[in-house]
Amino acid sequence: MKQGKLFLFLIFCTIQLQSVAQNKIVVFQSDFGLKDGAVSAMKGVAMSVDTGLKLFDLTHEIPAYNIWEAAYRLEQTVPYWPMGTVIVSVVDPGVGTDRKSVVLKTKAGHFIVTPDNGTLTLIAQSEGIEAIREIDEKINRRTGSEKSYTFHGRDVYAYTAARLASGAIRFEEVGPLLENKVVNIKYQAAAKEGNVIKGTIPILDVQYGNVWTNIPDELFNQLGIQLGDQLHVVIYHDQKKMYESDMPYTATFGAVAKGKPLAYLNSLLQVSFALNQGNFSAAHKVYSGSEWTVAISKAVK
Amino acid sequence: MKQGKLFLFLIFCTIQLQSVAQNKIVVFQSDFGLKDGAVSAMKGVAMSVDTGLKLFDLTHEIPAYNIWEAAYRLEQTVPYWPMGTVIVSVVDPGVGTDRKSVVLKTKAGHFIVTPDNGTLTLIAQSEGIEAIREIDEKINRRTGSEKSYTFHGRDVYAYTAARLASGAIRFEEVGPLLENKVVNIKYQAAAKEGNVIKGTIPILDVQYGNVWTNIPDELFNQLGIQLGDQLHVVIYHDQKKMYESDMPYTATFGAVAKGKPLAYLNSLLQVSFALNQGNFSAAHKVYSGSEWTVAISKAVK
Amino acid sequence: MKQGKLFLFLIFCTIQLQSVAQNKIVVFQSDFGLKDGAVSAMKGVAMSVDTGLKLFDLTHEIPAYNIWEAAYRLEQTVPYWPMGTVIVSVVDPGVGTDRKSVVLKTKAGHFIVTPDNGTLTLIAQSEGIEAIREIDEKINRRTGSEKSYTFHGRDVYAYTAARLASGAIRFEEVGPLLENKVVNIKYQAAAKEGNVIKGTIPILDVQYGNVWTNIPDELFNQLGIQLGDQLHVVIYHDQKKMYESDMPYTATFGAVAKGKPLAYLNSLLQVSFALNQGNFSAAHKVYSGSEWTVAISKAVK
Repeated sequence: MKQGKLFLFLIFCTIQLQSVAQNKIVVFQSDFGLKDGAVSAMKGVAMSVDTGLKLFDLTHEIPAYNIWEAAYRLEQTVPYWPMGTVIVSVVDPGVGTDRKSVVLKTKAGHFIVTPDNGTLTLIAQSEGIEAIREIDEKINRRTGSEKSYTFHGRDVYAYTAARLASGAIRFEEVGPLLENKVVNIKYQAAAKEGNVIKGTIPILDVQYGNVWTNIPDELFNQLGIQLGDQLHVVIYHDQKKMYESDMPYTATFGAVAKGKPLAYLNSLLQVSFALNQGNFSAAHKVYSGSEWTVAISKAVK
Repeated sequence: MKQGKLFLFLIFCTIQLQSVAQNKIVVFQSDFGLKDGAVSAMKGVAMSVDTGLKLFDLTHEIPAYNIWEAAYRLEQTVPYWPMGTVIVSVVDPGVGTDRKSVVLKTKAGHFIVTPDNGTLTLIAQSEGIEAIREIDEKINRRTGSEKSYTFHGRDVYAYTAARLASGAIRFEEVGPLLENKVVNIKYQAAAKEGNVIKGTIPILDVQYGNVWTNIPDELFNQLGIQLGDQLHVVIYHDQKKMYESDMPYTATFGAVAKGKPLAYLNSLLQVSFALNQGNFSAAHKVYSGSEWTVAISKAVK
Repeated sequence: MKQGKLFLFLIFCTIQLQSVAQNKIVVFQSDFGLKDGAVSAMKGVAMSVDTGLKLFDLTHEIPAYNIWEAAYRLEQTVPYWPMGTVIVSVVDPGVGTDRKSVVLKTKAGHFIVTPDNGTLTLIAQSEGIEAIREIDEKINRRTGSEKSYTFHGRDVYAYTAARLASGAIRFEEVGPLLENKVVNIKYQAAAKEGNVIKGTIPILDVQYGNVWTNIPDELFNQLGIQLGDQLHVVIYHDQKKMYESDMPYTATFGAVAKGKPLAYLNSLLQVSFALNQGNFSAAHKVYSGSEWTVAISKAVK
C-alpha cells in the first residue's frame, strides 16, 4: 500500500519536473548573424551534450552589442514557447569582464541563460523572477575550452543550456543562488498625463517599417477611443518634434487607402503605427530606442 | 480468420493515413524576415501543440507583401518534401480583411496552410487540388489570441498546421469544405509562336543573379536546339526591349569563358540565362515579375 | 561462454559503428543564401530519405563561388559537432565540369560531402584524412533527377548525405576509394622570421568587423609577449602597407577604451585584431583573403 502511494508520488514528481524543468528544447538568440560558423558551433556543442535535444532560433540578427533589443526580443517571443524551454541569449559586449553569467528561472517556467548585462530587464518584469543562479564555470564549461576567453556563447552558455535542457544537470546544479534581481536598463514607461498618453518606441517591426510603442491596450483604452476614431499622434526624438498627424485607429491595415497612416494594436497588443502596404519608419525617418517618445490623444474634430 | 483480415485492413489504413495525412513535419514560409521574433513565436506555438513535431523553413525572405513570389517558392520547393508534410505560407497583406484562411490538400498529398490570396496560384496547378477547407477560427485558433487581429501566422496558421501535422485534428476537422478552386494571379504562360518561344521571368536566382524563365524543357525542345547551339535572346520590360544577344545553350556554366552569357536548364528544367561566375541580372538590369517577357529563337549563323 | 563473448564483441562493434558512422545528424553549408527555396529543397530530399534525421545549418551565406571561405568555415565549425555527423558543403562553381563529387571521412570521425574543388583544403589538414570515396552517381543520386545538371546539392550531395547519416548506405557504399589527398588552395602559412611573426588574414569576424589571422597561440607565444604588453602590428595588401600601429595584447575587449585597438586570441586561439565596441575592418579598410598579410612584433618602448 505504502509502496503504491510512493510510486504515485514519484510519478507525480517526474511529471512536475518534466513540465517545468526539462522539455529538451533549446532556443538560441545572439548578435552573431548567420554568415559565419558561430551559431553552428553553439548547436554542435549542444548536440554533443545530447543528440536528443531539439534546437531552435529566436534571432541571430540582433544589432551588434544592442542589449536593449535582445531584451525586447525575449519579452516578445519567450511566452510562446512551452514551459521548461531553455533560451540562450548571447549579446555580450562585456565578455571577459566581471559581468555575471546567469540562468534566470521565470515564474512562468522558462529558463534564460545569458550574461546579466541588461538582457533580462523586460522578461524579468513580464514573467517574474522565480530564482537566479550564477553559472559555476568550474563545472559548467565545455571541456577543453579553458584557453578561450571570448566565446562564452559556445563554451559556457550553449553548453550549460544543453545540459540543463537534457536533464544532465538540474537548475540547482547551475551554480550558487543570487538575489532575486537583475541588471536593468532604464527606459520611459508608458503613462497617461491628462488626456495624453506618452510612451517610447522600443522597437520597429523592421521587415515592414511599422512603428511599435510600449503603450498597452489597457492604458490606451483609457482615452475612450473606438475603432474608426481619429487619433492625434506626435513623435519626438530627444524632445524634438519629428512627426505630427491625425490617423484612424483600425483593426486592419486594409481599412485605410494604400500608403495612408493608421494606428493599430500589434500582436503584443501595444499601440503601433503603420502605412497600409508602406514603410512608416522609412517614409517619416522615425526609428526606435529610448530617445524616441510618442504622445497620443483624441483628434480634435 | 475474419479478425486476421480486419487486422491487416486496419494496418493498411494506418499506413495510408500516416503516409498521406500526418508525418509530423511542418515547413514555414513568410515575408517576416529573420530579424525579429515572429518566426520564432510561430515555432513556439507549434512546439506548444506537440514537442514531437519537426519544424523547418522554406524561406522567410519573401519581399514584403509579394504574393507572387510566395506562390513561386511553393511551386519550386514543396514537391521535394515527403507526402503528408504541412506547409505554412504567410504573405498576408490582407490580414484582417475578408480573404479566406484555408488549407489546400494537393493531389500529391501535401497540405498548404495559407490565406487564399493568390499564394496557391501555382501549386494548385502543378500538384492539383484534392480538396480545400476554410479554417474554422472558432475551433482552430490559439487560446488567448482573440484580441490580436494582426498575427494570424502565429495565432491561426502555425497553430492549425501544428495540430494537423501532429494528428490532433484530421483534415476534415479544419473547417467547412470549399469549392475546388483558388484565387489566381494572372501571368503570361510560356508559348511557341512560329519559330519563337515567348515566356516571362517569374523569378531571379537572386543569390547568383541568374534569370529564370517559365519556359519548360519540353516546349524549348520544339525549337530543335542542341547543346552547344547558339540562341538569340531578347528580353522586354513592358514591351520595351532591354537586352538582346546571342548565347550558347550549354549543360554547364564552365562551358563558356568567365563573364560570358549562356542559356541552360535550371534545376526546375526551365530555360534560364546566366553569366559564368557573374551576375546576369545586375550586369544587364534585368529583373523579374509578370511585366518581364522573353523571346527565344535559333541564332542566325 | 563463447556465445557470450561473441555477443559482447557484437555490442562493441555496434557501439563503434554508431559513434563513428551514423548519428542521424546532417549539417548543411552552401553559398545559396536563404532567399529562395534551394536550402529547403535539399532538406526536403533528406527528410524524404528518413524523417528521423536531424538537420542543421552551418551557414548558407558563403559569398557566391568563394571556395576559400567554405573551406575556412568547415575548419572553424566541424570540430564542435559530434563524431559521425555528416556535413554537406555546396560551393560549386564547377558544377557540371569534371570536378569530383566525394565524401571525406576525417580521422576525427566526421564525414564531409562536397565537390573536391578546394573546399577540403583546411579540414583535411586539421582533422586528417581517414579515407576519401568518389560518389557513384549511378547509385547515389535522387531518382528522377537525371535531366537536371545544375543542382547537385539537392540531387547528389543532400541525397547521399541523408542516406549515409540514416544508415541506408555505409561509407563503403558511397563509391570507389580514391587516393588519400584532396584538391588544395595555396595560401601563406603562419611563420616566425627573426623577431617577426608573419601570417595571412584568412577571414573576418564579419558581424563585428574583427580581423582574424592564421597565427596560432603556440607560434605567437614564441615572441615572449605577456597579457598587457604592446604589440607592433603591420598589415599589407599585396605587399602594400595598409595599416601600422601599436596595440596591447589583452584577454578581454573591455581592457581598452571604447574604439581603441587591441590584439587578442579569438575562439580558435588565433591572433586577432579588434576595436573595443567598434569595427576594425571598416575603420581601417582591412579585409580578408590570401593577398592580405600581417607582421607582428614586440612594440619598441
